[in-house]
Amino acid sequence: MARSTLYQLVASDLRRTIYSGALGPGDQLPTEAELMTTHQVSRNTVRLALGELVNEGLVTRTPRRGTVVRERRPLLMHPQRELQPRPERVRADGEYREAFAWAVSQEGRVPSQEIEVSIVEPPEEIASRLELADEELAVVRRRLRFVDGQPYNTNDSYFPLTLVAGSEIARPGDIVRGANKVLEELGHRQVRVVDDIWARMPNSAETERLQLQLGTPVVVYVRVGYDEEDTPVRVAMSVLPADKHLIRYELESR
Amino acid sequence: MARSTLYQLVASDLRRTIYSGALGPGDQLPTEAELMTTHQVSRNTVRLALGELVNEGLVTRTPRRGTVVRERRPLLMHPQRELQPRPERVRADGEYREAFAWAVSQEGRVPSQEIEVSIVEPPEEIASRLELADEELAVVRRRLRFVDGQPYNTNDSYFPLTLVAGSEIARPGDIVRGANKVLEELGHRQVRVVDDIWARMPNSAETERLQLQLGTPVVVYVRVGYDEEDTPVRVAMSVLPADKHLIRYELESR
Repeated sequence: MARSTLYQLVASDLRRTIYSGALGPGDQLPTEAELMTTHQVSRNTVRLALGELVNEGLVTRTPRRGTVVRERRPLLMHPQRELQPRPERVRADGEYREAFAWAVSQEGRVPSQEIEVSIVEPPEEIASRLELADEELAVVRRRLRFVDGQPYNTNDSYFPLTLVAGSEIARPGDIVRGANKVLEELGHRQVRVVDDIWARMPNSAETERLQLQLGTPVVVYVRVGYDEEDTPVRVAMSVLPADKHLIRYELESR
Repeated sequence: MARSTLYQLVASDLRRTIYSGALGPGDQLPTEAELMTTHQVSRNTVRLALGELVNEGLVTRTPRRGTVVRERRPLLMHPQRELQPRPERVRADGEYREAFAWAVSQEGRVPSQEIEVSIVEPPEEIASRLELADEELAVVRRRLRFVDGQPYNTNDSYFPLTLVAGSEIARPGDIVRGANKVLEELGHRQVRVVDDIWARMPNSAETERLQLQLGTPVVVYVRVGYDEEDTPVRVAMSVLPADKHLIRYELESR
């Protein structure tokens, strides 16, 4: 990667001030003169840096009000796109990127995640969706996703253990080509999904894990994937802080 | 309609006790013997009435615990079905019924609604979706929907005034064949919709209008309908108390 130029360093510093919440929507950034002093750079460098933030939609600039932080748009999720022949999974830095990572990168922000893989007796609402027998086990891949280092949402995917034992899905770490591809290789391509969406207040574990502010509801988004024999092969449950996410479907009339 | 039989009257009475909240999830209903006394009916009549409630999924019966009120399932919404050739709009009592009314009736409950029609300068989030010019007006049809007489959700549909002035859409009262049908007759059939879903805490007007309990978030569901020229012709915004609604989409992989 090319070494960052000076204006990019200034932009990056200002971006951090906004993402950290130190400056919120409607707040004014320091004036050009102030930024020249604090960063020890020329007016031209300051203007280039502010131009970056304008392009990213983070701030607006007007002669009267100066540079002002914009309302943050929620992250736009397109659950339908994950079913298409993956136009959103482009090669980037030699890796496929999933829909979340793609949406975040599009906004000029940095996605990352932590993955924990374990074998569990899943909670009732998962077990019934996976049509598991009593005490039947599942592999769960729990993901905590970050944007610019801040916890953003969680995505826990459950698979019947009988289906995925011994496969990559049951092993720790990311699966670069995606768990759905592995399911396909195991003979369980998903041909149909059912998406359920509702909302509720978060529980205390979620509040802590997602560092939620008091009074922020969460949207719960559950996708059940069925193979050609109409057997449920995956249940993915996402917990999305309501202030940061927007789910969109596009449908055509017949 | 046939006159209700005795057991149906008893069932209806018990149903009211449950829907009113006098008996909540997990609560026990009176014993068979108690119901025989309070309703002055035979044990057989009591059993038939309780059987009705079991069939409706309102209660469970076990020898050990007796008859117990079940967790209330949220109302299942299928936004896709409104786009299909309306299998859900069946003739019933000589009237077409829309998706909400149909879903409610399926559960053996009684839907109703209040409609207010007015001409307004819509809020910014509606105006931008309708692509209205500054100060351009819209017709709004505001619906407050009830289940068994209790406020359940709201649905406000906005139409550009220039498009619908003089039509049934701009007049008070229900449109039996549906506003979408009227739009179609006006040459603006919707061929594509975009559904946005998010959640937030309700504002005080919503809390009052929907008689929400403290701490209940709402799901906001907005559908924008586009005609063949890709002009937005309708924006419908629903406010759905989160504890009472579940939104479902079914998708096929390509």
